[in-house]
Amino acid sequence: MKAITLSDPSDKTSLALTEVETPTPAAGEVLVKVQAAGINRGDLLQAAGHYPPPPGASDIMGLECAGVIEDPNGHDFAQGDPVACLLAGGGYAEYVAVPVGQVMPLPKGYSPEEAASIVEVACTVYSNLVMLAGMRAGQKVLIHGGAGGIGTFAIQMAKAMGCEVMVTAGSEDKLQVCRRLGADVLINYREEDFAEVVKNQADVILDIMGAKYLDRNITAMAPDGHMVIIGMQGGVKGELNIGKLLSKRGTISATALRARDLEDKARICAAVVENVWPMLERGEISHQIHEVLPIADAARAHQMLADGLVTGTLVLRVDA
Amino acid sequence: MKAITLSDPSDKTSLALTEVETPTPAAGEVLVKVQAAGINRGDLLQAAGHYPPPPGASDIMGLECAGVIEDPNGHDFAQGDPVACLLAGGGYAEYVAVPVGQVMPLPKGYSPEEAASIVEVACTVYSNLVMLAGMRAGQKVLIHGGAGGIGTFAIQMAKAMGCEVMVTAGSEDKLQVCRRLGADVLINYREEDFAEVVKNQADVILDIMGAKYLDRNITAMAPDGHMVIIGMQGGVKGELNIGKLLSKRGTISATALRARDLEDKARICAAVVENVWPMLERGEISHQIHEVLPIADAARAHQMLADGLVTGTLVLRVDA
Ligand SMILES: NC(=O)c1ccc[n+]([C@@H]2O[C@H](COP(=O)([O-])OP(=O)(O)OC[C@H]3O[C@@H](n4cnc5c(N)ncnc54)[C@H](OP(=O)(O)O)[C@@H]3O)[C@@H](O)[C@H]2O)c1
Ligand SMILES: NC(=O)c1ccc[n+]([C@@H]2O[C@H](COP(=O)([O-])OP(=O)(O)OC[C@H]3O[C@@H](n4cnc5c(N)ncnc54)[C@H](OP(=O)(O)O)[C@@H]3O)[C@@H](O)[C@H]2O)c1
Repeated sequence: MKAITLSDPSDKTSLALTEVETPTPAAGEVLVKVQAAGINRGDLLQAAGHYPPPPGASDIMGLECAGVIEDPNGHDFAQGDPVACLLAGGGYAEYVAVPVGQVMPLPKGYSPEEAASIVEVACTVYSNLVMLAGMRAGQKVLIHGGAGGIGTFAIQMAKAMGCEVMVTAGSEDKLQVCRRLGADVLINYREEDFAEVVKNQADVILDIMGAKYLDRNITAMAPDGHMVIIGMQGGVKGELNIGKLLSKRGTISATALRARDLEDKARICAAVVENVWPMLERGEISHQIHEVLPIADAARAHQMLADGLVTGTLVLRVDA
Repeated sequence: MKAITLSDPSDKTSLALTEVETPTPAAGEVLVKVQAAGINRGDLLQAAGHYPPPPGASDIMGLECAGVIEDPNGHDFAQGDPVACLLAGGGYAEYVAVPVGQVMPLPKGYSPEEAASIVEVACTVYSNLVMLAGMRAGQKVLIHGGAGGIGTFAIQMAKAMGCEVMVTAGSEDKLQVCRRLGADVLINYREEDFAEVVKNQADVILDIMGAKYLDRNITAMAPDGHMVIIGMQGGVKGELNIGKLLSKRGTISATALRARDLEDKARICAAVVENVWPMLERGEISHQIHEVLPIADAARAHQMLADGLVTGTLVLRVDA
């Protein structure tokens, strides 16, 4: 089959379509013929050598896809069934082997490209904001990087669930995207200190900056607040003022979806199909595809994301 | 009425029984005639000027007591009803005004001294380990300061709930106390590094050291582990390695019981009466009274606790 690989492992831009072996589904897996694959920041990290796939996972990039069942491998599917899949890797290819717990139906009315653009963000945002931080109606939620793939989804989901949403972004254009998606409070982090704007108000915080925002996120936190760190774009080690956290009775979690075990991922996928797919089908959350590109253009797609030119998600189309 | 006050506010040992005004219960409060008051490390901190009572609370020390209703103040009690109370302050006195949500029945078979020794630890341990960290049967729990007031209670409650319990303490004598209460793994922190012993195993950690143990607690944490910091005996500010926390999908909370609002405290007291009192009544948890002293000896009691001579809890008896 054809798949995107790094022709030169030391050069993260050397992504090229090459011939590789088609995967064989192991016990508990099905084989999926990929029609579309979403691009995530994790793929950029992997291309740069910073985010190796977990043991046992494909070493091909691609954390989400949509397509059709090629080989049900004894599971309760028929060849040709349309599916959306959460992957530990392997999406940038014509075929991928997927643990059955991570195979979901497409949201009704969704094309493969649309579905491939929302699996990873839906699972990340729902598992962290709802399953971990317990986000519920009436709460105030601070979302950093509101115009990114994660952010655009998180804004809409928090609004659909009846929350008040505060976002940060680095330009007025990006903030206007956030506003159209429902954000209530817009903070240009280049012009304002978000911690002073949000101060003591955020019941839930979705953080992607890590160390750089650690102390300011605690300032922003409401009593009994919960911040979840899913990215460390601002560094790995920071000073934690435990006294300040204690004065808020605050909670800090840091998580990654990709390293979870199969049981955990299956639990998350089931919860997402049950709770998030209806929000998509009712139109409360819309997919945010920035652009669909042919898979051969993966290198260009990575460059666009690296250059900060993307609002929402990029999708690779895999032609038969 | 008589109450313990600081005769010289600059001298934390100047505790003396003096004549003060009897409190008047406000709306939503009852007046309780105190028979016994538990002593907590928070009282030592308050005597030293480091832990001022929250706004509106009595400025007398004493975070828990048992006694009888003196004035129901329109609430559903009769004069003379025996009660155990969680207090924001005021226990070291003949009378105390208590929000009704914090007035509990005595566990069956418990004397006032026994009840006064367990209210604060029961509410602290249950709210943090169970209500916040979700501790449940089959988990491994690390309890620091296992021989203290909090520790002795936490060991027993975790065992009663079907957990495996690992403890730290500073002497063999104290560790033997922990063993008798059910602890499975005993760690003398003066001789061993607890982080190496527990490494990657603790689903739940109850911490009282703060900064000094922050990084090592993350080392000790199991995947999806949750540590709750309730004391900062080892400092307030520490370096947090977010990458390490993320690799465990770990959660860190820091909490204080005293500053919670009335609604929260009422919720905790109700949960404790429902879930913890039966464990006491079935003998799965026994009170750990180190000594009962007359209230006039409060200064000596504080000194004993400060000197690290106490295993379990000290109680002051208030004679009529
Ligand atoms: N832990 C997990 O399970 C998990 C899962 C998915 C994603 N993530 C992480 O979550 C983060 C967001 O993912 P995403 O897919 O939404 O990525 P994205 O679409 O690239 O969005 C990231 C946002 O961060 C801001 N940003 C990008 N580069 C930056 C830089 N160098 N400095 C400061 N801000 C920058 C950008 O907003 P502005 O231009 O407005 O600054 C951008 O909108 C990433 O760090 C990703 O690795 C984690
Ligand atoms: N946040 C809250 O809501 C809340 C509520 C109650 C208590 N607390 C805190 O929880 C902690 C434990 O309370 P407790 O009532 O169990 O106190 P305790 O009975 O005095 O026990 C504390 C334990 O810590 C160890 N210790 C004491 N002083 C120390 C020092 N200077 N350095 C190192 N270790 C020391 C002692 O064990 P070893 O001799 O074995 O070292 C002792 O058994 C305290 O910090 C208290 O303030 C917090």
